Amino acid sequence: MRLRVTYHLACSSRLAVAKARDIAFEQTVELPADSVPPEVAARVAGRVESVETLGRGRSSAVISFDPGAVCGDLPQLLNLLFGNISFKSGTLIVDLGWPAELLAALRGPRLGIAGLRELTGARDRPLLCTVLKPLGLSAPQLAQLTYGFARAGVDLIKDDHSLADQRSAPFAERVARCQEAVVRANGETGGNALYFPNVTSNPSEMMDRAGAARRAGCRGVLVNALPAGLGAVGAIAATTGLAIMSHPSLAGAFFHADHGIAPEVLLGDLFRVAGSDAVIYPNVGGRFTFSAETCAAINARLRAPLGPVAPAFPAPGGGIDAARVPRWIERYGADTMFLIGGSLYAQPDPIAAAGQVVAAVRRHSHG
Amino acid sequence: MRLRVTYHLACSSRLAVAKARDIAFEQTVELPADSVPPEVAARVAGRVESVETLGRGRSSAVISFDPGAVCGDLPQLLNLLFGNISFKSGTLIVDLGWPAELLAALRGPRLGIAGLRELTGARDRPLLCTVLKPLGLSAPQLAQLTYGFARAGVDLIKDDHSLADQRSAPFAERVARCQEAVVRANGETGGNALYFPNVTSNPSEMMDRAGAARRAGCRGVLVNALPAGLGAVGAIAATTGLAIMSHPSLAGAFFHADHGIAPEVLLGDLFRVAGSDAVIYPNVGGRFTFSAETCAAINARLRAPLGPVAPAFPAPGGGIDAARVPRWIERYGADTMFLIGGSLYAQPDPIAAAGQVVAAVRRHSHG
Repeated sequence: MRLRVTYHLACSSRLAVAKARDIAFEQTVELPADSVPPEVAARVAGRVESVETLGRGRSSAVISFDPGAVCGDLPQLLNLLFGNISFKSGTLIVDLGWPAELLAALRGPRLGIAGLRELTGARDRPLLCTVLKPLGLSAPQLAQLTYGFARAGVDLIKDDHSLADQRSAPFAERVARCQEAVVRANGETGGNALYFPNVTSNPSEMMDRAGAARRAGCRGVLVNALPAGLGAVGAIAATTGLAIMSHPSLAGAFFHADHGIAPEVLLGDLFRVAGSDAVIYPNVGGRFTFSAETCAAINARLRAPLGPVAPAFPAPGGGIDAARVPRWIERYGADTMFLIGGSLYAQPDPIAAAGQVVAAVRRHSHG
Repeated sequence: MRLRVTYHLACSSRLAVAKARDIAFEQTVELPADSVPPEVAARVAGRVESVETLGRGRSSAVISFDPGAVCGDLPQLLNLLFGNISFKSGTLIVDLGWPAELLAALRGPRLGIAGLRELTGARDRPLLCTVLKPLGLSAPQLAQLTYGFARAGVDLIKDDHSLADQRSAPFAERVARCQEAVVRANGETGGNALYFPNVTSNPSEMMDRAGAARRAGCRGVLVNALPAGLGAVGAIAATTGLAIMSHPSLAGAFFHADHGIAPEVLLGDLFRVAGSDAVIYPNVGGRFTFSAETCAAINARLRAPLGPVAPAFPAPGGGIDAARVPRWIERYGADTMFLIGGSLYAQPDPIAAAGQVVAAVRRHSHG
């Protein structure tokens, strides 16, 4: 089976077939058809499987590619899907059809929803994740927040994605103190709260930080997947066995109405097959701009059966507080990790506010 | 000194100050101003230095950031500049003002224009680079092309950026054969042609491939900088000492009229400070869509004095052939690497066509 990619093309229906054929060649042999030996073109070039008019100057084209061109390699997959044609306006990826061979090579989440449930001990209810912020607090201050959130019953406490190795809270000190705080809180509560530090950096530092996090006892990490390179997600998982929560930093560059990669394809399909156990995205109603349909589509793609690839937790952030938790649980279901950041810090006591969300989640969950 | 970022904001001039302040907080403390302790905000949040109306619903805002927030780390720099606000439409980065401390930390090209001139022996003229393609040829076929291009006097022969580790020409075999071909040709011509393989992959494979390329005798490599993660460029340079040619695969996602990162900032400033010795971009008149002004701006930013950061070669590709070489040399100057790919393969004999471009470059260069 071949990798099937559905592109929406902004052009007259008259030009759509030529544009689709151009993509099929540009993304593989990178030459016009008449400059490629026919035997090579037949074997290597993408194939235009179908083109249909959507009306109003848009067409939908399905182009299939030899999965062997991907080499089981996330950077090469991104390059094949959208590398050069990112420069051609009016080209939007809206769907992917995965061959089993490629899914097996890419692997996807090592832990996924089931594995994160195992780690947190939360069997049947949504998970709750809070964020350590703002940048500028010291490591002891962040550890104090970690302790408070863990005591309050939060499942997962992650670094803000802008915490790197700044002098205010250097990575090594932050990990040591926050992990100690979560272990201490768990000792007192009998709970299984987890602390996930942000390890995003240049490749070697990132692997060093992930290794240090593991040695410190952390069970997972946060990665800014696009700034780090999407291949970093699987690399950290493979090397350390840690759970990976992927942050969508930079992803908004891809989300234009008629150009880029649809959010559910990038954050749903691609972040998942890259190995993310949970994927953060901006929830409808928060301070960013996804629609309810987009959020539902991301959730569906993170959880749907996908060959040997485990489902991953959607982690919507934004617009979630104790009062609204019942509505979100009903809408998104139990296999959701609710991410609560800014709204807690708008309260006089963020820890108490987190405790209220914890209570609301448990009250409105069955089992 | 602080890192100064100029954003163009698509909003009414009435809202521009609030939008700028929102960016300054979102990209650092990631909280609204009223949720941040004033002492932390003063120390850590971005500062709105100026906002001015550009007319027609656009404003220009200069926001400055503490360079310490970057930690000398390319992924964190991208995250700081555009991470979360990539989700907010109408936000375009058009200029960067670099503090010396940050430039020193990021390093930039190890070789740059001077170093690549040293390697190729081309002292005063533009360099010429050709591309091995299409994907689907065998390693011996690609090596045959390498030999021909090197014999024809091409300075630099690079893998097409879609050549990874496909079965048709596996990385190890391709590097061995193409490097052997270039050495053999140099032995015959007394020249210094170079072969740069594409090493883009997941982090550990990429570093392995770069190391293998170095051991095979290659003096540089090609990297798809955004799919790999921009931090990979400096990591490979630091670990191997190889020259890095960066390919702009995926970069088109950032190039919208009112949202993203302007091409000259991403491919000029950021690719350069990341450590690229040469940066490929789609030339005006080629099959993509950059304007003459954009190309000139990229060239200027790759070459301009920038503290301790060495200048890098602009490598425009597209629309360049023997007949047009004089015009391009006059327009772009000697510190240019002309990239010739598709147009050669449209000729019955790509090697002979390359030889004609070589002759044209030497005829129209002084010194």
